[in-house]
Amino acid sequence: MQRIVTLTTDFGTSDHFVGTIKGVILNINPSAQIMDICNSVNSYDLLDGAITISQAYNYYPANTIHMVVVDPGVGTARRPILVNTGKHLFVAPDNGVLSLIYEREERCSVRHISAEHYFLQPVSNTFHGRDVFAAAAGYLSKGVEPQKMGEEISDYVRFAAPKPKPASDKLIKGVIIKVDKFGNLITNFTANDVPQLLKESPKPFKILVGKSEITKLRTAYAQGTPGEVFAILGSMGYLEIATNRGSAARTIGADKGTEVGVLFGAEASANAGT
Amino acid sequence: MQRIVTLTTDFGTSDHFVGTIKGVILNINPSAQIMDICNSVNSYDLLDGAITISQAYNYYPANTIHMVVVDPGVGTARRPILVNTGKHLFVAPDNGVLSLIYEREERCSVRHISAEHYFLQPVSNTFHGRDVFAAAAGYLSKGVEPQKMGEEISDYVRFAAPKPKPASDKLIKGVIIKVDKFGNLITNFTANDVPQLLKESPKPFKILVGKSEITKLRTAYAQGTPGEVFAILGSMGYLEIATNRGSAARTIGADKGTEVGVLFGAEASANAGT
Amino acid sequence: MQRIVTLTTDFGTSDHFVGTIKGVILNINPSAQIMDICNSVNSYDLLDGAITISQAYNYYPANTIHMVVVDPGVGTARRPILVNTGKHLFVAPDNGVLSLIYEREERCSVRHISAEHYFLQPVSNTFHGRDVFAAAAGYLSKGVEPQKMGEEISDYVRFAAPKPKPASDKLIKGVIIKVDKFGNLITNFTANDVPQLLKESPKPFKILVGKSEITKLRTAYAQGTPGEVFAILGSMGYLEIATNRGSAARTIGADKGTEVGVLFGAEASANAGT
Repeated sequence: MQRIVTLTTDFGTSDHFVGTIKGVILNINPSAQIMDICNSVNSYDLLDGAITISQAYNYYPANTIHMVVVDPGVGTARRPILVNTGKHLFVAPDNGVLSLIYEREERCSVRHISAEHYFLQPVSNTFHGRDVFAAAAGYLSKGVEPQKMGEEISDYVRFAAPKPKPASDKLIKGVIIKVDKFGNLITNFTANDVPQLLKESPKPFKILVGKSEITKLRTAYAQGTPGEVFAILGSMGYLEIATNRGSAARTIGADKGTEVGVLFGAEASANAGT
Repeated sequence: MQRIVTLTTDFGTSDHFVGTIKGVILNINPSAQIMDICNSVNSYDLLDGAITISQAYNYYPANTIHMVVVDPGVGTARRPILVNTGKHLFVAPDNGVLSLIYEREERCSVRHISAEHYFLQPVSNTFHGRDVFAAAAGYLSKGVEPQKMGEEISDYVRFAAPKPKPASDKLIKGVIIKVDKFGNLITNFTANDVPQLLKESPKPFKILVGKSEITKLRTAYAQGTPGEVFAILGSMGYLEIATNRGSAARTIGADKGTEVGVLFGAEASANAGT
Repeated sequence: MQRIVTLTTDFGTSDHFVGTIKGVILNINPSAQIMDICNSVNSYDLLDGAITISQAYNYYPANTIHMVVVDPGVGTARRPILVNTGKHLFVAPDNGVLSLIYEREERCSVRHISAEHYFLQPVSNTFHGRDVFAAAAGYLSKGVEPQKMGEEISDYVRFAAPKPKPASDKLIKGVIIKVDKFGNLITNFTANDVPQLLKESPKPFKILVGKSEITKLRTAYAQGTPGEVFAILGSMGYLEIATNRGSAARTIGADKGTEVGVLFGAEASANAGT
């Protein structure tokens, strides 16, 4: 059965981990079509894993099985789970790494994967990516039905991704949630959070990131003049801080976790010239 | 239709970008066989992308579709193009990233990909790798004919890769065009540029790289004595500066862009002992 | 013929090397199913390559072909070899990179790959990964029989991986053989080397790594209290030095090659409180 299994993990690419996982899946189902989404999620970083899978899963065809393993609690009581959105399946530890899937999908059935006869025996305490999740994904790709993996649960773990909050009627505060490979700073502002900013002719605004003030909005990276740092609504659906052919992260010295303020109205224009 | 689609991009491996692209292709053609050539091209670096694809494409079977996306101008007027060499297809932005393909292939038909019904809608301004190139590659892999993608054009962008130039009748000047994973310094000298050097018993020569003088030529990396930096005709077809089991780049402090001079004749031997 | 070919190399992911290798294999056998195990083995590091393949190969289905290329001697007299364990095939340079396979497999037939008509011609002196090993793997995946590749040999190169040694009746000395992506320090102690340590209620012990003393043993990474560095029997079968949600390597300043001592008995408990 030729079914796609994707991998989103923090296992990195410098060890055997991902190669071993692929072997486990193929040993169970040699026809599985394995696709790396990203194996360089920041170590132990659930939000980073959640963002990565949330940006990719929906582009895959129906019936894809997504294995998402960022699992600092491996070997403890945290459960392995199987999430079914009707279109896609996900296997992951129950630690919130699928929170953005729950947020985007209207209905998810979540099961505790408890059918240990599908696991690789003996199950280690430190590599469930291999012994539990790859094995479960392998059997699912072979056509084993989700309900055979375990009972449905409703008390699964989910966290709320950080959302921008109004600090006053002129200031909204958010945060950098990711720095991408190009050094673009991905904020947690969506188009809905700052509709004023994305109008045809926006009123003056100021975006404060660390010690920098950004007052330009561009619609393509290449519109930036040399050295200019600007805001842009990026392909992830978030406002990004970017610079043309360079790294905004390096240029303004900001990083994941840096606070971002969007300031509108008189204060934004008053200070703009100073 | 099981057709190979290769990826050569600067999207990196630490984000969702490449995973998303694979999803788009597979959603259009679940039988596509996707192969990463390299997703760690230096950000925005057209020459680096051009070198990478030029070194790999021709080893693939006929009818392979090569997607080459290094695209600093995404969202601007630069066109998406489809290049057909008769044996291979390429999809890429029209910014010169395929220049070394044009150089190596006698006849290329180049089309402007304008058939927007093949694109992912809405097309973003910042991720045509996903919305334009992956979608086009997906449909091509499904058998859509190149002429359905758009009209042939002749004013496509191409740049000349830097070539070595004689500075005098004894000195040829070139440049380091790439540092590979091992720290080998890849120059732009081919065997044709320095035939004197590659004779059975070459006359004295001196290769100047930064502050270093290289006077040894080896035919295998392991022939180098410990610590020795030498020249070697590498598998890319270029003269390389290398050291046995170490990084020449680190040893002599050179990098991409460092000038290289090859000196022959009396001056090369006269100074050799000093 | 849909047969799996895995890649374990030190070619990295920032150049065309791995992409070219995949092209060679697919050009010979378009149905080969190519799986990256790991292409970021430390440059030239035979032990690192040996550990990586030894941790992954056995999870793959029977008849998998494993290509293992860490090849500092490329272009010299070292032979290309084909190893058949009865279940798996391996192609590699004869430099010991398969030593841990020889150690784990009861019977291996080892052949010198000498049938040059299977090579890519002309064979370069510097990239046998492409010209020799990928080509051989491609033909093997197509069903060419191992005996057609060359004669059996018995004088193949193998090295002994470093083993812990008793320094006194209370002290066993070993070494860190690997640092994984998470910063876990992988020692060369297996469960058999320190059975006392892994009992239900072990007697006092002390593990000395650099200037650090480790006195805690955990069975899951998440059991570690914040900042604590502890020992754990890891999924590779080796004792690891780890810390919960952090890098033990960074925390205690140890690296590959750092000596490790395991101390039992009076000395371990006497000093424990100081």
